[in-house]
Amino acid sequence: MRYLLLLILSVTIKGAFSQNGIVVFQSDFGLKDGAVAAMKGVANSVSGNLKLYDLTHEIPTYNIWEAAYRLEQTVRYWPAGTVFVSVVDPGVGTERKSVVLKTKSGHFVVTPDNGTLTLVAASLGIDTLREIDEAVNRRKDERQSYTFHGRDVYAYTAARLAAGVIRFNQVGKQLPNTVVNIPYQKAGTEGSLLKGTIPILDVQYGNIWTNIDRELLKSMNVQYGTKLQVTIFYKDSLTYEGRMPFVPTFGSVEEGEPLAYLNSLLQLSFALNMESFADRYHIKSGADWKVVVKVAEK
Amino acid sequence: MRYLLLLILSVTIKGAFSQNGIVVFQSDFGLKDGAVAAMKGVANSVSGNLKLYDLTHEIPTYNIWEAAYRLEQTVRYWPAGTVFVSVVDPGVGTERKSVVLKTKSGHFVVTPDNGTLTLVAASLGIDTLREIDEAVNRRKDERQSYTFHGRDVYAYTAARLAAGVIRFNQVGKQLPNTVVNIPYQKAGTEGSLLKGTIPILDVQYGNIWTNIDRELLKSMNVQYGTKLQVTIFYKDSLTYEGRMPFVPTFGSVEEGEPLAYLNSLLQLSFALNMESFADRYHIKSGADWKVVVKVAEK
Amino acid sequence: MRYLLLLILSVTIKGAFSQNGIVVFQSDFGLKDGAVAAMKGVANSVSGNLKLYDLTHEIPTYNIWEAAYRLEQTVRYWPAGTVFVSVVDPGVGTERKSVVLKTKSGHFVVTPDNGTLTLVAASLGIDTLREIDEAVNRRKDERQSYTFHGRDVYAYTAARLAAGVIRFNQVGKQLPNTVVNIPYQKAGTEGSLLKGTIPILDVQYGNIWTNIDRELLKSMNVQYGTKLQVTIFYKDSLTYEGRMPFVPTFGSVEEGEPLAYLNSLLQLSFALNMESFADRYHIKSGADWKVVVKVAEK
Repeated sequence: MRYLLLLILSVTIKGAFSQNGIVVFQSDFGLKDGAVAAMKGVANSVSGNLKLYDLTHEIPTYNIWEAAYRLEQTVRYWPAGTVFVSVVDPGVGTERKSVVLKTKSGHFVVTPDNGTLTLVAASLGIDTLREIDEAVNRRKDERQSYTFHGRDVYAYTAARLAAGVIRFNQVGKQLPNTVVNIPYQKAGTEGSLLKGTIPILDVQYGNIWTNIDRELLKSMNVQYGTKLQVTIFYKDSLTYEGRMPFVPTFGSVEEGEPLAYLNSLLQLSFALNMESFADRYHIKSGADWKVVVKVAEK
Repeated sequence: MRYLLLLILSVTIKGAFSQNGIVVFQSDFGLKDGAVAAMKGVANSVSGNLKLYDLTHEIPTYNIWEAAYRLEQTVRYWPAGTVFVSVVDPGVGTERKSVVLKTKSGHFVVTPDNGTLTLVAASLGIDTLREIDEAVNRRKDERQSYTFHGRDVYAYTAARLAAGVIRFNQVGKQLPNTVVNIPYQKAGTEGSLLKGTIPILDVQYGNIWTNIDRELLKSMNVQYGTKLQVTIFYKDSLTYEGRMPFVPTFGSVEEGEPLAYLNSLLQLSFALNMESFADRYHIKSGADWKVVVKVAEK
Repeated sequence: MRYLLLLILSVTIKGAFSQNGIVVFQSDFGLKDGAVAAMKGVANSVSGNLKLYDLTHEIPTYNIWEAAYRLEQTVRYWPAGTVFVSVVDPGVGTERKSVVLKTKSGHFVVTPDNGTLTLVAASLGIDTLREIDEAVNRRKDERQSYTFHGRDVYAYTAARLAAGVIRFNQVGKQLPNTVVNIPYQKAGTEGSLLKGTIPILDVQYGNIWTNIDRELLKSMNVQYGTKLQVTIFYKDSLTYEGRMPFVPTFGSVEEGEPLAYLNSLLQLSFALNMESFADRYHIKSGADWKVVVKVAEK
């Protein structure tokens, strides 16, 4: 009977923790060596009952912005209580803080606070930010390393949090509700022009993703069938100029023809049907790439 | 007691569904961004009890034939009741149907019906084909997208089917037992010649896989040790001509020497021991590649 | 009551087996085709209760040494009882033995005995080595293949072992406690010089990993802040010569500057902060690469 009570209690407490036993890993480690498997081994050594998944490990090395973007692209599609680990950590072993963010949506992100949280903190909101106390939340092992916090601190802490070995408040002391932010431009209007940037490419297909969202498009009264005049600049030099329809799907235009559409994050994007826009016009992403759009005709 | 009955009932019904809680994902999304993780997040949001695996996400973009081939290569090795999701979908948002195939072997494949089912429908048989009713089997979300059915329709429907949230007949209305087929050549004999094509390469090792199966070889009385005269044509131009033994294993010939063998699908294949046949002789795959084989000597 | 006893008995026996239901796969198959998924399908067909993970499938084709190194890099971080499958098998179908190693640390490795076990056998110790008896531990299937033992023998046996379908002694007959070893050089001192090799690169970042371990460094009284004079030779030709501090972390030097550090296996390594040392100086790995280090100043 006592055990039953304990069981009920533990289930109740577990509910209160609200972690769901899922850990999702992201890094710039690539898949060619054992680094990712070492992290998952550590997580399994904490608990054999976790469910471990990958976001991506192909973040270009040291590219914190892309790490931030991939979290923004995916976290919201996972159930509340999921614990994300993101290790793109050029400053490993230096003064950057190791933190766990709990978002207002109930997701957790375990990461160096180096800009990785820029986008999810803004979109999902900061419920609480805690600094990982490495005195307790670090693997005890003769072979621990100054250069592999992904294994020894982040995977370890994420697994303990996800498995309910520690509660969120045992991660470490609470920090003010602000994260290190990578500066980035927001999109906006200027008279009859929509202006934005290319924060990232849809790399696999060569589509161009902008930061101009659906609301801005609506404010310009853009509808399916509207023809858009699109110019793309690298620094101040014109790289692409063309006219294309705003359409719901790729198949709305002929193969090889350009189109404008809303991507899976509902932001204005440009593509060639069945071809790579980025390859044909040599377009890349980043703060130096500007996009200007205006309505050509309805 | 009532709960016990309910439990027994639900277990019984679950058995009747025959899904086993396993979902296997395939796509041309690559592993560099968040698309695969978004699909798995959606699946986990449907149920935390699913087991999610990957077939491959490195199908060359828009290559429906290769998607069909990879399903053919793997589905049969998974237990009956496994739900596959295949998203190579150049026609996303157009008129192609979204379907779930139940094979006679008891496997499920959730996919656009664009040719992806060509090979498994033929080899495993069509038990039932249903069209996904997107009125019910589509994520309800402000951020749903016209261009990411992989996340909003296919992963969602597969997860609900695998988890028993819906039964197979709740996927949508039954269609006639025919799928969209990609035309492909079958292998055959012509006098003393075996004629076939190269449907795909064994990309990692550079081995040449043909569509000439074990039965055809037997009909020509090919046995281990038989020397084969092999010619390979691209369109009508001779690309390779050589003689090689038909052997059980790579180690049967010296390093760098050619051999003929049965691949893991029991189809005639050509290799160089410890080298890439495809690289050395610049051979690729597809309907334009023809293979002609005859017995040189025993 | 009888069932309760059976249950207790089965739990006890399961404990005695000591496998934990986890299987970790490694191969040189790559991720572009269905080979890995076929292996996992076979494992799931053995038991739906296994947890299947990947070490890496990007071992360069036929590179047994790298397979050995990746096991050394990761096995110890997984809980005892984990079953590893490593399939880098240029001699598939020839006389090499198929074995299961149980290490003194309680890990299992299912693999061709072709050198893959070189490093883990030395570091974790050989508890027992058994030869897989293919008369019983091989899939019964019309479509079994002479060239895909990864699917038909290794994944199958690993899954049966991990799931407790067979006990370790049912794998096959015990062999003497020696494995096939790839010869490799050990590091050492020569007067005031530390001499070693570059067994492998940290491929993703371009860092140089040597086989000179922490104990050797201590014996030369190297401490944080010590400046090291480093020379790297390919065969007998000088490839790199430079001076760099031994520091705990990358951020201890300016961007683009060289540093010496202990990698995650606690072996001496060289890097450029935020750049690729291997790319800038055209350095690769293997037995032909020699490293000579001496203390320049404290």
